[in-house]
Amino acid sequence: MGETQELAEYVETITYDDIPSEATEHAKTAIRDYIGVALYGSHHEVGDTIYNYIDTQYGDGDATVFHRDAKSAPAAALANGAFGHAIDYDDTFESIVIHPTSPVFAAALAAAEEVNASTTKLLTGYVAGCEVAYRVGHSTYPEHYQNGWHSTGTAGSFGAAGAAASIQDLDAEEVSTAFGIVASLSSALKKNFGTMTKPLHAGHAAEMGVRAVLLAQNGFTADSEIFEGDIGYNRVMTIDDSYDPEEITEDLFEEWGVLDIGFKPYPSGVITHAAMDAMRNLTREHDLEPVNVESVVVTLEEAASEMLHHKQPNDALQAKFSIEFCLASILREGRAGIHEFTDEYVQQPETQETIQKVSRAFESNLFGDEFAGYGAVVRVTKTDGTELREEIRYAPGSPNNPIEEQRLDRKFYECAESRLSESDAEALDTAIQNLEDTELDKFVSYIE
Amino acid sequence: MGETQELAEYVETITYDDIPSEATEHAKTAIRDYIGVALYGSHHEVGDTIYNYIDTQYGDGDATVFHRDAKSAPAAALANGAFGHAIDYDDTFESIVIHPTSPVFAAALAAAEEVNASTTKLLTGYVAGCEVAYRVGHSTYPEHYQNGWHSTGTAGSFGAAGAAASIQDLDAEEVSTAFGIVASLSSALKKNFGTMTKPLHAGHAAEMGVRAVLLAQNGFTADSEIFEGDIGYNRVMTIDDSYDPEEITEDLFEEWGVLDIGFKPYPSGVITHAAMDAMRNLTREHDLEPVNVESVVVTLEEAASEMLHHKQPNDALQAKFSIEFCLASILREGRAGIHEFTDEYVQQPETQETIQKVSRAFESNLFGDEFAGYGAVVRVTKTDGTELREEIRYAPGSPNNPIEEQRLDRKFYECAESRLSESDAEALDTAIQNLEDTELDKFVSYIE
Repeated sequence: MGETQELAEYVETITYDDIPSEATEHAKTAIRDYIGVALYGSHHEVGDTIYNYIDTQYGDGDATVFHRDAKSAPAAALANGAFGHAIDYDDTFESIVIHPTSPVFAAALAAAEEVNASTTKLLTGYVAGCEVAYRVGHSTYPEHYQNGWHSTGTAGSFGAAGAAASIQDLDAEEVSTAFGIVASLSSALKKNFGTMTKPLHAGHAAEMGVRAVLLAQNGFTADSEIFEGDIGYNRVMTIDDSYDPEEITEDLFEEWGVLDIGFKPYPSGVITHAAMDAMRNLTREHDLEPVNVESVVVTLEEAASEMLHHKQPNDALQAKFSIEFCLASILREGRAGIHEFTDEYVQQPETQETIQKVSRAFESNLFGDEFAGYGAVVRVTKTDGTELREEIRYAPGSPNNPIEEQRLDRKFYECAESRLSESDAEALDTAIQNLEDTELDKFVSYIE
Repeated sequence: MGETQELAEYVETITYDDIPSEATEHAKTAIRDYIGVALYGSHHEVGDTIYNYIDTQYGDGDATVFHRDAKSAPAAALANGAFGHAIDYDDTFESIVIHPTSPVFAAALAAAEEVNASTTKLLTGYVAGCEVAYRVGHSTYPEHYQNGWHSTGTAGSFGAAGAAASIQDLDAEEVSTAFGIVASLSSALKKNFGTMTKPLHAGHAAEMGVRAVLLAQNGFTADSEIFEGDIGYNRVMTIDDSYDPEEITEDLFEEWGVLDIGFKPYPSGVITHAAMDAMRNLTREHDLEPVNVESVVVTLEEAASEMLHHKQPNDALQAKFSIEFCLASILREGRAGIHEFTDEYVQQPETQETIQKVSRAFESNLFGDEFAGYGAVVRVTKTDGTELREEIRYAPGSPNNPIEEQRLDRKFYECAESRLSESDAEALDTAIQNLEDTELDKFVSYIE
């Protein structure tokens, strides 16, 4: 049996009971994290434009669009996927640089509402979809990403299709057809990083996953061995001989990709996070604030330099790519969340002055290990001459360096309460923690 | 100025008066050819499934869907693009293996109805869109196609965006944004050849072109130099150093890609057409029919062997990839059109018997020149022992070997009359011949 068929059978046969509770619990953490950032993204400028598009082009339907009017399933998947990735604050498979939950859960939710599935089915489909994205992602990483593709949009579309297929009870033949269809509909280029098209990638993946499943269910045909062969998806997407079909199939039902999901404690690129946590530790331990700090020098791995485009940012988007702003915000507030990553906050004179206290340095092979750890060293000189130093080797929130639950709680409430009342945010939190025992209608009533 | 910007300015500035009349006339021939096959495709099984999808997911709108209910612009583009390529009978840039008019005209028409543009504007936008597809196609050919991509869906999506952008009066900055967006939304894998997903590629390209233009007009952002750089579209799509930006920009306003469009005289792969015309000539000159023919041997270039999957086909789809069926049909009927490429006709005992008279041979370097000529030699042995031979070096309908207007007339009427009355088909023909003098509403009234 080929790898496409084997993965399709996985999607057909997986049930809730196959999944260890550790994985379902981590899945619910990821779903909550996603829903928070997607609620915030729903009225961000990316969310506004995408919603306006589906509102004018798609017309009404029954699928929930976060904090907007309901639309058809593909339209809802497009919007909710883009909302989740709107400010680049959503979760990550760090080993393969993929944001899984925006494309996968957006598709899963639309599919679940399409067939009025149980929340247990929704959760199972989400886990299955993450597994598909994880495996397609690993089988093409790193060549695919290095060649210029944004894997969240490409591998993510297979995850979206896998989730929707599981929830809509496709048989293995239909699942492999859906994989064939979505392979011909999905794309996403890194060249569009730093523009609104980046979050669109996640929405596009979700929509095309839902579309592929609906078409496959209606008898549409596609190649049923899309991963295999010289012009199969994986070879086309890597253009060398690195593709290993084993990465699609080995240890299915034994290893769970969903456990490799990490969470962002800050709404900026993951490369800034270790430095921000180092700054946070120093600020807390030594009562630092702008008035008692002379200078901050942050040292990052050399490879990070090309992602940090802005030393003195002027708006929220530039601030995401400014290590200087990121540390200045922590120094001023002891934190950096959605309230700090706004044009207004970035432009405050106090912020701009604090930014000037921070300077950057780069070193090759900073911690003698792989760059993928995203580590950092922060050195602070206080106005009284005291020298402080803090290093963190792995990005906080990643599986190598998990953060306290309270920090994820705070992130969720901060994001969710941008659209919901405190009591509704709490009810939503409770519903997600007890997802299997919550009716689908009840669950979506908090986010619609 | 970079090539993306230069091509965007071309799209912004082109007017009807820039286009030589030879090009507008050829464009109208292509539009008529497309409309005929798209009307036929609108109720083919691919057309049925795609229409059902947009009908359930998109809801109603004002954009014409061929011989179906009107939908929103992106939905109409999706359907009309797929209808045109449904039976692989639509036109071709043979030099780069792209079917241009299905994606480009489907997008152009949806865009024109969106803004109630004049038919002159529609025609100009179509020519501009063909130029964009032609240039993006050439700049990545042949590596892109060889790597496994179906350029009709990839390069075609830029053509669709270019056409819609021209018609909707985008400025150059918006056009380059639309190119950036569509680069991240379009795909199409050759692995899906021989399935319904192949025609979907043309519809997907059309829809995403329309979507990219609508988003760009509404302030959505994308990289404005999508063709340039190490992770630009063209480099990602070729993965070598073959990309030449000159092919995007040289001789704009002087050379016209639309003139390189060829037309299919038969609804099968272009590789079968020279042999079919050779058989047609022999049949006509020597009054051949199955009873007076002992055997037919057709010799094709070696490279054709991998495309001709079926020696004794059992249905219409297999028949497209059977040189034996193609020649048997000509021998029986003196022709081969949509009435012969049906399951019913293929399965007739007389057809199956005639197929057995035909055998295939392959030769390397058959005519001592490039394979791209798609030439063939046909040898017939009559029951009376007479030996006949006919060779044709270039596929009929291609710019190297144009076919008589009457044959394109007959193709159009045969296809159009599958949905329209004879008088409506004639009125539509007249409207297209005089497109610039026909109101848009009047024009679409024949095809809606």
